[in-house]
Amino acid sequence: MTYCVGLNLEQGLIFASDSRTNAGVDDIGRFGKMRVFANDGERVIVTLSAGNLSVTQNALNLLDHRATHDASQPGLMNAKSMFEVATLVGDAMREIRARDESYLRSSNIDPNASFILGGQIAGESPRLFLVYSEGNFIESLADTPLFQTGETKFGRPILDRVITPQTSLSEAAKCVLVSFDSTIRSNVSVGTPIDLLVYRHDSLQLGVQRRLEEDDPYYGEIRRQWNDSLRSVLQTLPDPDWL
Amino acid sequence: MTYCVGLNLEQGLIFASDSRTNAGVDDIGRFGKMRVFANDGERVIVTLSAGNLSVTQNALNLLDHRATHDASQPGLMNAKSMFEVATLVGDAMREIRARDESYLRSSNIDPNASFILGGQIAGESPRLFLVYSEGNFIESLADTPLFQTGETKFGRPILDRVITPQTSLSEAAKCVLVSFDSTIRSNVSVGTPIDLLVYRHDSLQLGVQRRLEEDDPYYGEIRRQWNDSLRSVLQTLPDPDWL
Repeated sequence: MTYCVGLNLEQGLIFASDSRTNAGVDDIGRFGKMRVFANDGERVIVTLSAGNLSVTQNALNLLDHRATHDASQPGLMNAKSMFEVATLVGDAMREIRARDESYLRSSNIDPNASFILGGQIAGESPRLFLVYSEGNFIESLADTPLFQTGETKFGRPILDRVITPQTSLSEAAKCVLVSFDSTIRSNVSVGTPIDLLVYRHDSLQLGVQRRLEEDDPYYGEIRRQWNDSLRSVLQTLPDPDWL
Repeated sequence: MTYCVGLNLEQGLIFASDSRTNAGVDDIGRFGKMRVFANDGERVIVTLSAGNLSVTQNALNLLDHRATHDASQPGLMNAKSMFEVATLVGDAMREIRARDESYLRSSNIDPNASFILGGQIAGESPRLFLVYSEGNFIESLADTPLFQTGETKFGRPILDRVITPQTSLSEAAKCVLVSFDSTIRSNVSVGTPIDLLVYRHDSLQLGVQRRLEEDDPYYGEIRRQWNDSLRSVLQTLPDPDWL
């Protein structure tokens, strides 16, 4: 499984992903799901992948391969807009699936995959997209400042309560870490390290990128304080007078 | 959808269920999912149903019908143990499915259903079971003091953090309401009123049974305080020094 979150806030974009893959409980691996394509001052593009690892990896490999060997080919480093980036990624995923899907299905392997994809290209505002398994995609607008993929439900409530477009990057980063903690506690197939990237609006530079391991002191402190506080908040809620 | 929770604690049992059913977004109804079978001083049995409403209703109707018209038939009011109760309910569900399943499947209707079922019969300790769609079942033991059915994930993290067999009934009831609030916020197909029943160990009496409507003042206060506290706890968490 996987857990990925992308936030589209007034102050910028936040991306976070876990690093666990599994092909059955006896085959659990560690693969980062975040990739960054940046050219300082001109573009910063981040992808978070979920679902079938061979499909998501090779969709990006295919784009990279073509653009590397033929500069006239469209790729993530020369696309003119984030819309074009989302279109390229959706098309590449369709191409990989057309190649592999019947082989995967013949072994009952799920070929579904998806991307959260966002960033900024000079001349545009920052944008955030969710590319579905079928290659179509939607864009985050003010009403929907966040996308999740993978094991989304355990970590959803705290995001629903806190995140608005006006939430600060610092507040949102804490909220995302709490959301990951809740997910990791409840689903063994989501695991650390957590890749976290914070992109500031209009910076056109990579910004802060952190890999938080299980024993990261800051992540540990967040988890400990959150857990203790939740339990004590519950105790301070009024007791039912009918019990 | 549905959300049901059953807790098996040292002080007793707690049952909670929502009251929304849907057969598509344009066909949302209100059906309580909790049923109680009690004979003061002798037995208290509670069922929470999830899944196909006709299957769960008619499994219980079938048992009721037979026991009403032939006192020699086994039923929930004369079963000798909670194990026998779970067996009866599983068998009745299998019988209804054998009758209806092919008709349901021919219209692409999901016949799956399940029960959380618990209570106490004089001579036994309180017991809690989860009866699967196939009619087999498991019992809650000390390592697993809670069962959920239906839309389980949104409301799971707070239960995972708080509930142990030693949790008091009052604390657990608050935790369950918070879990329902998180679920109802994130999934429109789970809705109030919430049916809540608290059974005290060895009382062999019905105990507290409440139906909490959307505008219930106590439930409203729990929701408000929890939401406010969560947001302020998040603010008091240490800010990342790398942002």
